[in-house]
Amino acid sequence: MALVNQPRPAGQHTVRRHNSALVLGAVVESPGMSRAGVAARTGLAKATVSSLVDRLVAAGLLAETGPQARSGRGRRGTGLSLSPSGPHGLGVEIGVDYLATCLVDLTGEVHALRIRPGDNRAASVARVLARVTRAVRTAFADAQRRGVPVGGVGVAVPGLVEAATGLLRVAPNLGWRDVDVRAEVRRRLGLGDLPVLVGNEADFAALAELWCGGHPDLRDFLHVSGEIGIGAGLVVDGTLFRGVRGFGGEIGHVCVDPVGPECACGARGCLERLAGQEWILRAAGVWDGVGPLRPPAALLDELVDRLTAEDGRALRAVRGAGRSLGIGVSAVLNAVDVPTVVLGGSYARLERWLRPSLQNELDRRVVSAAWSRVEVLGATLGTEAAVRGAAGAVLHEIIIDPDPYVSTVLPG
Amino acid sequence: MALVNQPRPAGQHTVRRHNSALVLGAVVESPGMSRAGVAARTGLAKATVSSLVDRLVAAGLLAETGPQARSGRGRRGTGLSLSPSGPHGLGVEIGVDYLATCLVDLTGEVHALRIRPGDNRAASVARVLARVTRAVRTAFADAQRRGVPVGGVGVAVPGLVEAATGLLRVAPNLGWRDVDVRAEVRRRLGLGDLPVLVGNEADFAALAELWCGGHPDLRDFLHVSGEIGIGAGLVVDGTLFRGVRGFGGEIGHVCVDPVGPECACGARGCLERLAGQEWILRAAGVWDGVGPLRPPAALLDELVDRLTAEDGRALRAVRGAGRSLGIGVSAVLNAVDVPTVVLGGSYARLERWLRPSLQNELDRRVVSAAWSRVEVLGATLGTEAAVRGAAGAVLHEIIIDPDPYVSTVLPG
Repeated sequence: MALVNQPRPAGQHTVRRHNSALVLGAVVESPGMSRAGVAARTGLAKATVSSLVDRLVAAGLLAETGPQARSGRGRRGTGLSLSPSGPHGLGVEIGVDYLATCLVDLTGEVHALRIRPGDNRAASVARVLARVTRAVRTAFADAQRRGVPVGGVGVAVPGLVEAATGLLRVAPNLGWRDVDVRAEVRRRLGLGDLPVLVGNEADFAALAELWCGGHPDLRDFLHVSGEIGIGAGLVVDGTLFRGVRGFGGEIGHVCVDPVGPECACGARGCLERLAGQEWILRAAGVWDGVGPLRPPAALLDELVDRLTAEDGRALRAVRGAGRSLGIGVSAVLNAVDVPTVVLGGSYARLERWLRPSLQNELDRRVVSAAWSRVEVLGATLGTEAAVRGAAGAVLHEIIIDPDPYVSTVLPG
Repeated sequence: MALVNQPRPAGQHTVRRHNSALVLGAVVESPGMSRAGVAARTGLAKATVSSLVDRLVAAGLLAETGPQARSGRGRRGTGLSLSPSGPHGLGVEIGVDYLATCLVDLTGEVHALRIRPGDNRAASVARVLARVTRAVRTAFADAQRRGVPVGGVGVAVPGLVEAATGLLRVAPNLGWRDVDVRAEVRRRLGLGDLPVLVGNEADFAALAELWCGGHPDLRDFLHVSGEIGIGAGLVVDGTLFRGVRGFGGEIGHVCVDPVGPECACGARGCLERLAGQEWILRAAGVWDGVGPLRPPAALLDELVDRLTAEDGRALRAVRGAGRSLGIGVSAVLNAVDVPTVVLGGSYARLERWLRPSLQNELDRRVVSAAWSRVEVLGATLGTEAAVRGAAGAVLHEIIIDPDPYVSTVLPG
């Protein structure tokens, strides 16, 4: 529109908000950039850039680093970067069998990661939310101890979150229905205006891998998180594709065997009944299928030990899971066409043993694999990806539109 | 960017190109709009609008309709609309068992629709392309006889088309691999600079349903085309989602039974082996599975007759297909979350009988169906949707950026 229309009159506030995002975005793209560099990149006047940078520095979003070019000539040679002591995202993940919290700073570093094993299926919604409240309070205390502000709370849940309302519509493996997690967290913690985001754990895990994972060129992929449930986050061109209402990524309930075992969702032969963590541990003989699955991390360790020792039953179990996973993932890849699958959650640890049968199914079943083989990668962030993604999503909101945050911390 | 950046200097040509699209877009949004209305909508000066409209009228894209407001006072009160005598899209569909061509005008009307039954699997690529060439020549002659220009050729193919190159990578049901259909059509017909688009038939069918189908509020849906193969076009927020490389929508190769029959693609239990037209006709006892499937339309008529007469075998066959379809479509909906399924191709005629078992599987298997039932609609355009979509896609390109077309037909 810039080519033809007169810019509409905009209030000073709107202009500042827009330009703050431009300036911060330029630094995110090119860390270490100088004020002069930002001016050149954005087309803004140097004086404008300087006053916006001053505000962003004062709000703790940007830090000035490196030696100044010449003493007495201002800060033109100073490099700008996101500040590690600025607002932190507070992430909390309500897992089926654990509760995790962490703080993430603007540089993507994780602090105060705490994982509390505990079966959240056995407790009431209110009881789990009380645990969440305590865990978030502890994380706030961690932030206070570190002397850093919290920019918002991101909550990862193992269920379907309605994008328009933030309502958790269903979490099959928790047995939850229609829980307004955002309102509950806000009310129980008295968070005032602090942003609270609620999202699906698999989506947050995919975003964490995108934002701070070890595969920096990854822009298009299906991130498959293997936990008690199996979720997926679909990333296309660096953006999460959540579907029309936010209910996408439920690949745990893709049917891989129409006459297979019953699932908590009500259907039969769902992928997570044939390739989820419980199925694998039981089929491998690591868990008896009756006693408590606690702590699952220890059982997973044992499974990995048996696989390393080439135990036949363990190898067969993981091979079977890989086959089922390949059938389910092929369905998704045939429908939406992304070239790469990232194995996250417990699958990341099992990657070496899952890969052959998984890749074999993908080779056979994905139509485009005939000339362009599906790439299978292990996730790099481990089981903490979802909680990191939840914290990171809070910061992502601040980075793409910093002015609301800046206005809350600066006077006037 | 308009709020902060100085517009970059732009050549007169770039400005005209941009503004032509703005003006045409305003008329498409509100047919019957006057020149003054276009000026108000776009923010362009009235004189600029008038000169652009004159060009678009001269190029045959816009027509002026309705009485003039006052004689002698120019055309300010005249309504503008897309011209039915302007450029026509020429669509050609290479079906597995037919070849179709048509012309579509800018108002969406179809002309000179020709469907030629004939099994294209039995013939070589060169022979089928020779048929295509003859069919397209006939369609050009149809256009000439009507005195209308052809704005481009859209080719629908039953296979995977690489978005970046236009190359048909594979058409499993034709047995084609790596055919540059665009280059072949261009060369054989000597089309010069005339645009030639090649795309997947299921994608074009979905677009036709979006652009000119009978469900005007449809913006988010999975259009499933049941032919010899089964393809799908995924439309999200009024835009086709083709996947990263253009290979999406291959739901015919979603696995619905891991130990099911072998498929032409090399895998087992693919949806199209258990719910495709051939399977249905054979299971219903309408076709012996050996003789030629020709003409399929007659066999489909016979199937519909038997279903109407409540023939047990026919009813069981279609019910079984609906069940398989439900398993395959659920996988896609769980992964990408769209609220509506549109049954196209031969499925549109079978909708009444497919629906109960299909809806039952969707109710059970789509996780979000528990609070938001998947809507199943019949397509309104019948088996000609793909060829109409191919022709329409050519016009869509002209409408969103008319200047290149205008420049080819106007001197100077």
